[in-house]
Amino acid sequence: MIAFSKRLISVPPSPIRKLVPFAQIAKKQGVKIYHLNIGDPDIKTPQVFIDVLNHWKKNPISYGQSQGEPAFLEALKTYYQHLGYLFVQAKNIQVTSGGSEAISIILFAVCNPQDEVIVFEPYYANYNSYAIINNVKLCAIITHSQNGFHLPSTSEIEKYITKKTRAILICNPNNPTGTVYTKKEINQLVKIAQKHGLFLIADEVYRDFVYDNQKHISLLDYIKQLPKQIIVIDSLSKRYSLCGARLGMIVSLNQKIMDGVLRIAQGRLSAGLIDQTMACQINNIPNNFLSDVKKEYEERRNLLYQGLKQIPNVTLEKPEGAFYCIVNLPVNNAENFCRWLLTDFRLNNQTIMLAPAAGFYQNPILGKKQVRIAYVLNKNDLKQSLQILAKAVTKY
Amino acid sequence: MIAFSKRLISVPPSPIRKLVPFAQIAKKQGVKIYHLNIGDPDIKTPQVFIDVLNHWKKNPISYGQSQGEPAFLEALKTYYQHLGYLFVQAKNIQVTSGGSEAISIILFAVCNPQDEVIVFEPYYANYNSYAIINNVKLCAIITHSQNGFHLPSTSEIEKYITKKTRAILICNPNNPTGTVYTKKEINQLVKIAQKHGLFLIADEVYRDFVYDNQKHISLLDYIKQLPKQIIVIDSLSKRYSLCGARLGMIVSLNQKIMDGVLRIAQGRLSAGLIDQTMACQINNIPNNFLSDVKKEYEERRNLLYQGLKQIPNVTLEKPEGAFYCIVNLPVNNAENFCRWLLTDFRLNNQTIMLAPAAGFYQNPILGKKQVRIAYVLNKNDLKQSLQILAKAVTKY
Repeated sequence: MIAFSKRLISVPPSPIRKLVPFAQIAKKQGVKIYHLNIGDPDIKTPQVFIDVLNHWKKNPISYGQSQGEPAFLEALKTYYQHLGYLFVQAKNIQVTSGGSEAISIILFAVCNPQDEVIVFEPYYANYNSYAIINNVKLCAIITHSQNGFHLPSTSEIEKYITKKTRAILICNPNNPTGTVYTKKEINQLVKIAQKHGLFLIADEVYRDFVYDNQKHISLLDYIKQLPKQIIVIDSLSKRYSLCGARLGMIVSLNQKIMDGVLRIAQGRLSAGLIDQTMACQINNIPNNFLSDVKKEYEERRNLLYQGLKQIPNVTLEKPEGAFYCIVNLPVNNAENFCRWLLTDFRLNNQTIMLAPAAGFYQNPILGKKQVRIAYVLNKNDLKQSLQILAKAVTKY
Repeated sequence: MIAFSKRLISVPPSPIRKLVPFAQIAKKQGVKIYHLNIGDPDIKTPQVFIDVLNHWKKNPISYGQSQGEPAFLEALKTYYQHLGYLFVQAKNIQVTSGGSEAISIILFAVCNPQDEVIVFEPYYANYNSYAIINNVKLCAIITHSQNGFHLPSTSEIEKYITKKTRAILICNPNNPTGTVYTKKEINQLVKIAQKHGLFLIADEVYRDFVYDNQKHISLLDYIKQLPKQIIVIDSLSKRYSLCGARLGMIVSLNQKIMDGVLRIAQGRLSAGLIDQTMACQINNIPNNFLSDVKKEYEERRNLLYQGLKQIPNVTLEKPEGAFYCIVNLPVNNAENFCRWLLTDFRLNNQTIMLAPAAGFYQNPILGKKQVRIAYVLNKNDLKQSLQILAKAVTKY
């Protein structure tokens, strides 16, 4: 009897991508789809990166170093030092194939089989895949739409800490909620990690996108306080619209962790050489690039938030960062609604694609009436999308 | 007590890359090192690939599809159909970040925790990493230098099949031995897989490099006979000197496996967009490219083999394919010897870097006096390397 592994069945499809087949059918029918389902920015990649490709000469295209190309590691060191983290040296950085590989490797590194990692739901759905692949148990603590998905109290969090708990993993600014944790909240987590001897891992790939003049509180600000426990996951994908270049990184002062991480990295040889060579330009980007991008996303956030508030029975708290929000819809089953948008609903031969939020919860019931919206479209397209959503909600 | 996971300790350093720090020190001292340690070809990447970079316009550099970019999947389908495998459709292919990711995903897909996969030692060292990460046990059956590392008898192989055995994994042509399995051997494995209901997985990334007019026997030739059991791992790295472009693939007619593999692939979003776009050119390479490359490697193989045979007390069987061989050295500990080559030995301020073979065995004692040599240097450099090795063996 030939059977694949039982654990393969338990790997969930991505809630962001599982409806892609329905979108493809609609596209073949000539329907225009506004993609609000995936955080794939429409903002242009800075030209300095493209220039590297256009002037590419290196031949053959050989392996890179397993830790990361030396020139890219140096560029990253400079990047972190410019942010004020002067203690970051090349040895504290591991380059990965996207932030995805970074999280997967770190879960393996800090957990023995069946160890537990605390996350706050709703959380980035792909954490489930990395957890299953690495035989790690995610313990989800619920957060609520009504208070903008901010953290529960210390005593509530401590209820979830067991002998098997190894780490707390946050995404800040948060995907899928758009929440930006306050200094008080980060302090709270640092204290819990310190008290209970846990790793504290922050996925900070949206670090630059924090609105309303709020300040992002990075775990890098605390790393000297808990040098063995704090691990930062980073990626260039969202910051520079480089999702298709698979470049993430792990930053930690825990040299034993970094040594182990490097051994894992050696097993897969190297991240992409072309992507890394291109990314050596991160410190040569026009000064106003990131502030302009942030301004653009903030305007979109405002437009989307105002527009959604005007749709009857649609509710959400104002998202504070990243480019996502979780929206409560007046439907019984948001996944069915999202599928119906692709298969049945058209407004002037256009429709929208949303990510059903159930996949962002450990308990899918909690997200059954919610969707995640990514505001990675220009303002005109966002306005169109809002109109489509308003009509669709009424009609459904 | 903050501790990383116990399993992190068990991930071995790459025998191919672990001596890199010693090489870096030597290079800083101005020593020229001939790299025979790593299968990173010096053959030029075909210009059609570079042209794609030089004419790159797509901006932003957005995510690719999780299964693989549609245009690249089509190009791969055409590639396999040109090889005569007309049954290969896009749905039978999953694009991965290098052959490494392909093997890692497949081990997860076919094995439950602690299930067993039969390999023949010496085997590609990084299989150990993928096995540990995926909680799979590799059961190594020894093969011997004296008969060119060809397979043992069916009854010998069957001794290793237990209730936990899920698959047999071969690399053909073989890294690290250079062995090319005969039709008889592949038939033998197919029969064993059929009889015992096992997956049969072939890592065929060196498919094109088979010498002495021998023919490579691909598992694709048997896939219709065992459509649910045969899985082929492939990669563009060696074929087109594209190691730095991380592009591998899984080919299987088992749609349930491919569905599960895609869910895993969705978790890590996509392989590199630039690498995939470049690789769409695989069917536009000059006709003589691969035959010329093969001729070049065959000449190097001849030169290396003849040269090694002339060094007293150095023994090997003539390698038949790929661009590796396992060489028996007259030393007690090949790893110490390899390190000494980097730290102490110089011939006209030059030395060589080799991969100690112990890491290619489950029982490292078996490879203690062996090294793996990759003949990825031009013939002049190979001649120099042989001189250095001859002197070093005498002096050590």
